[in-house]
Amino acid sequence: MDGLHLLAEFRGCRCVPELLCEATRLRRLCLDEVHAAGLNPVGELFHSFEPVGVTGVVLLAESHLALHTWPEFRVITLDVYVCNHRRDASAAAWDLIAALQDQFRPMNSICREVTRGDVADGFSPATAPQAPTWRP
Amino acid sequence: MDGLHLLAEFRGCRCVPELLCEATRLRRLCLDEVHAAGLNPVGELFHSFEPVGVTGVVLLAESHLALHTWPEFRVITLDVYVCNHRRDASAAAWDLIAALQDQFRPMNSICREVTRGDVADGFSPATAPQAPTWRP
Repeated sequence: MDGLHLLAEFRGCRCVPELLCEATRLRRLCLDEVHAAGLNPVGELFHSFEPVGVTGVVLLAESHLALHTWPEFRVITLDVYVCNHRRDASAAAWDLIAALQDQFRPMNSICREVTRGDVADGFSPATAPQAPTWRP
Repeated sequence: MDGLHLLAEFRGCRCVPELLCEATRLRRLCLDEVHAAGLNPVGELFHSFEPVGVTGVVLLAESHLALHTWPEFRVITLDVYVCNHRRDASAAAWDLIAALQDQFRPMNSICREVTRGDVADGFSPATAPQAPTWRP
């Protein structure tokens, strides 16, 4: 399925610590920014670890946003995946990553872009069945 | 945060259609395979779309498994992300992908491997703050 998957790391986050530590606050921020980017949430789940750290996901009609925080290192890893089945949501995915970066205020950030699906790998429905070759 | 992110597509899935269509059945399969791979779920959320399609996530102590099904095309996209903070869970991530492939029985599959974190991008805590450069 054609789509875009963005994999980001934010380090040295200068936001208020609660954004990294409190699941309810992180959840609220994620939902607000998902809506602001024009994406469509269909559910969300956030989990707090002991002693610190939150992991969470917003399921989207377009696919998902997932985040994992390490408050002790002021690090967040996150990924946004949008399938472009009904419309091209790529711009919204970039907007969401940028908006979250504005909120977490990392000292350093990196974002990898992975194009997924037929366009990316030349798959054709006419391709003959193959044995999986990707296992290391 | 050092880790491994696997991004897979399964096409032409020859499993029973219910595995692609029924959230409760997909959820059960995912939890079983997560446990079998030695990973540690901390929560899960699955959503059914109308008329067809399921999207779901299993949050892990190690990070997450996310899946999106398109039964009308017999396609699944999925990703497994494990951070290797407390132990190297890379082998478990590969085991999980392989086990799910065995269950969904795709005619074609592809899996991309993304190494995440300090090892992958040469980040050092001593690195000076940078303006983000990744926005297209």
